[in-house]
Amino acid sequence: MKYIDLNSDVGEGFGRYKSFEDERLYEIITSANIACGYHAGDPMIMEDTVNLCSKNKVEMGAHPGFPDLLGFGRRKMEVTKEEAAIYSLYQLGALHGIAKVMGKEIQHFKLHGAFYNMVMSDYEISKHIVQKVKAFQSNLVFLGLANSAFIEACKSEGVKYASEVFADRAYDRNGQLVSRKLQGAIIKDKGKAIEQVKRIVLYGEVKTIDETIIKLDADSICIHGDNEEALCFADNVRSSLENEGVKFQPLRYFK
Amino acid sequence: MKYIDLNSDVGEGFGRYKSFEDERLYEIITSANIACGYHAGDPMIMEDTVNLCSKNKVEMGAHPGFPDLLGFGRRKMEVTKEEAAIYSLYQLGALHGIAKVMGKEIQHFKLHGAFYNMVMSDYEISKHIVQKVKAFQSNLVFLGLANSAFIEACKSEGVKYASEVFADRAYDRNGQLVSRKLQGAIIKDKGKAIEQVKRIVLYGEVKTIDETIIKLDADSICIHGDNEEALCFADNVRSSLENEGVKFQPLRYFK
Amino acid sequence: MKYIDLNSDVGEGFGRYKSFEDERLYEIITSANIACGYHAGDPMIMEDTVNLCSKNKVEMGAHPGFPDLLGFGRRKMEVTKEEAAIYSLYQLGALHGIAKVMGKEIQHFKLHGAFYNMVMSDYEISKHIVQKVKAFQSNLVFLGLANSAFIEACKSEGVKYASEVFADRAYDRNGQLVSRKLQGAIIKDKGKAIEQVKRIVLYGEVKTIDETIIKLDADSICIHGDNEEALCFADNVRSSLENEGVKFQPLRYFK
Amino acid sequence: MKYIDLNSDVGEGFGRYKSFEDERLYEIITSANIACGYHAGDPMIMEDTVNLCSKNKVEMGAHPGFPDLLGFGRRKMEVTKEEAAIYSLYQLGALHGIAKVMGKEIQHFKLHGAFYNMVMSDYEISKHIVQKVKAFQSNLVFLGLANSAFIEACKSEGVKYASEVFADRAYDRNGQLVSRKLQGAIIKDKGKAIEQVKRIVLYGEVKTIDETIIKLDADSICIHGDNEEALCFADNVRSSLENEGVKFQPLRYFK
Repeated sequence: MKYIDLNSDVGEGFGRYKSFEDERLYEIITSANIACGYHAGDPMIMEDTVNLCSKNKVEMGAHPGFPDLLGFGRRKMEVTKEEAAIYSLYQLGALHGIAKVMGKEIQHFKLHGAFYNMVMSDYEISKHIVQKVKAFQSNLVFLGLANSAFIEACKSEGVKYASEVFADRAYDRNGQLVSRKLQGAIIKDKGKAIEQVKRIVLYGEVKTIDETIIKLDADSICIHGDNEEALCFADNVRSSLENEGVKFQPLRYFK
Repeated sequence: MKYIDLNSDVGEGFGRYKSFEDERLYEIITSANIACGYHAGDPMIMEDTVNLCSKNKVEMGAHPGFPDLLGFGRRKMEVTKEEAAIYSLYQLGALHGIAKVMGKEIQHFKLHGAFYNMVMSDYEISKHIVQKVKAFQSNLVFLGLANSAFIEACKSEGVKYASEVFADRAYDRNGQLVSRKLQGAIIKDKGKAIEQVKRIVLYGEVKTIDETIIKLDADSICIHGDNEEALCFADNVRSSLENEGVKFQPLRYFK
Repeated sequence: MKYIDLNSDVGEGFGRYKSFEDERLYEIITSANIACGYHAGDPMIMEDTVNLCSKNKVEMGAHPGFPDLLGFGRRKMEVTKEEAAIYSLYQLGALHGIAKVMGKEIQHFKLHGAFYNMVMSDYEISKHIVQKVKAFQSNLVFLGLANSAFIEACKSEGVKYASEVFADRAYDRNGQLVSRKLQGAIIKDKGKAIEQVKRIVLYGEVKTIDETIIKLDADSICIHGDNEEALCFADNVRSSLENEGVKFQPLRYFK
Repeated sequence: MKYIDLNSDVGEGFGRYKSFEDERLYEIITSANIACGYHAGDPMIMEDTVNLCSKNKVEMGAHPGFPDLLGFGRRKMEVTKEEAAIYSLYQLGALHGIAKVMGKEIQHFKLHGAFYNMVMSDYEISKHIVQKVKAFQSNLVFLGLANSAFIEACKSEGVKYASEVFADRAYDRNGQLVSRKLQGAIIKDKGKAIEQVKRIVLYGEVKTIDETIIKLDADSICIHGDNEEALCFADNVRSSLENEGVKFQPLRYFK
């Protein structure tokens, strides 16, 4: 039996600005990455989002971002490894506080946007973050890009980790994502994207942008839910995989 | 034997802006109120401050403020009781995260500036905050103004609390602080201020602004350390009380 | 011939968060209050909004708010009169810069949310703001609540001002808005609201909450455009008045 | 007769945090770069700083930074050229507003920290910024690093510009600053630093890190004033040059 997790970013509103996800998203995903106030999210919204997860039996993850509300955490920022680690811990601690009061435990940790991209290829910073974060909660699952420096750091630190894949992003021969700046990086044909994700989940392999077949581990699929089309695609991914007998379950229950 | 705690605000820098306290302050106080990022403080500074407390064997408290960095949390802001509670929890959770990684537990909880003033007289908001915060950490000591609505809420919620007094503020017959807007509210004569604090600590009473003697409970004295003069006064308060045989110990060990 | 201005708040997005108004709103209103970055709005959005105004021949106003992005400028904040004045000037200057580069001049000045409410009844602060702002741009129209302390300050400072009225808010005998906390403060019946606004514009009078008829000056009607229903109501207000022969023109052309 | 300008960053406090410069700095410099609220500075401080400049007959410059208060604008941030331009304009407009009310005109424009570093080598972004800013105030002097992409953009846009040099930074054969990461980048010997600045100002040449003599234009020397030592060095630079007959005057009067 094949198992997979489906994760999505949630709770990314701020003050009067609503979060982007439709509530139906919570019926599709198994793990939710909750914004913690730096790139989006505020305490009131975090509380509401924890509630939504709880109501829908979706597992919760801390989703720390860069301190750049104006840029939604999507802009590269040159933070030091010390800053990277303590910004992660601050945001995780804040979410932990809110979740604990509601009787919930945080399942996983996934960085956001440009912070996520930074650790993809920076082993040193990844290590600093993982060390700091595991010292806070040792049973957390660290969710990162498959084959990334972040996953390497997780392995070397001996923490639980999960490899994330994308349905609609092309891979190269090294199992890395093709840069968005290159042609063909985004798989626009929804059918092809679903074929890709099926192949990854069922056979542990992917056809790269240059048509080679390589191995690719996948514990979780990253999905968006911030518009009708994304929601519909997420639903298709899930039902297509369910048709193949794949079971969806949160990262907590892996391994 | 008389025991008393001495508390002060610390870690109130931000980014490149240094915190105001001199490191010598940590040798005088027994409990430190650590800024948590809303009115001042940032994750790097919070970590340094936890370190300083740890090194100096000073107990740590979360010191949540209003989300008003520009106004240093000193401006009245009309937040709802739900916002007040969850802002408190967010900041407490963040500090808890940083402290836990360093092997430390937070001892107490004290609100900052205009947030502190708000709960002085607002029982409803106080109750909401105390309920939320105790659900996170039940052994916290809630530090608030003696005879305030906040202390009432602590009593009714059955949490550990500590009554705070001021050496240099005049009291009225009801045991309330005389408003700073009124003449005589601030006791400028340092000698008189030390006399007042001695009387409070040794005999549990204070001479009010209209020369009446009333009872006044005191578990902790609030002291400032953001300039040379304040530091010197803090030192005098401590040594004057020690001369009378008073012992200084953190709130954690009370009752 | 009767003339009236129709104003609405616009450009209240932030970063990735879109502004609330529908673009059709710009076809209904004659003056737009543009958020300037403190309670909402950012430089990119301000530029887009100036563009939208320009394209739709809508006059622009600076719409300064309190520095409270989290509270959308709707929470009372105790700022000093000096802060109130210089916060206004900072935001106005920023918008002026953006508008000037696009060949546009700001027509009016209207405070936002809790800042607007503060000056309704505070003559001292109003005076400070008006003095500072008129020293920057002497031909600005100051838009404020009819019969408010702000309008009084405008008169005493000798600036151009415009009195704003609401279709759907009840008035008391003194020409003041009935507090939202009281029953009947909001006129929910759209037909009644349109009757009220017609009476104000055509006859310069309003029936108060206790059924008295009083005089009420109106230069501009405040309208919302942040949802379909509001947009529809705004459209109804405009067409109902046009049916009565009222002409819509921006404040700039008054008097 | 040789003329030179001496510029320094000022007004870099925030809220309760004081600006770093000593007031004596204003007696040494001829041009001041005023923080505009993004990396530091707030409206109240900007007003005070404009006052200080005015009182000391120091010319004022807008000193826009990245929107990163926590990082003091010193962290690289990947902003687009459109963002770079409009962030500059927003901050310039805000300072213009405050200065105008006090009867002052802004003399120059200089970017801060990581923003300054970004335009050093990015011609495209430089051009976007210069175009936007000159459209606001055509008589501004654009102050940038000698031989940088920013100065190239200024030339091509036909604006007044000024080349800035450093007393204590080593130069390479291309007239570029040696990266701080390399040894010898900072000239720690104060005497040598003063020799360098004299040679630049008097003879228009500099001895590079590899002991070659190259031409180097200088309109302004960048000086710090955020501690006693920096202040003393600034004073030495000025008096050493005055001893050589060099006259100090603000950029406004050049050419």
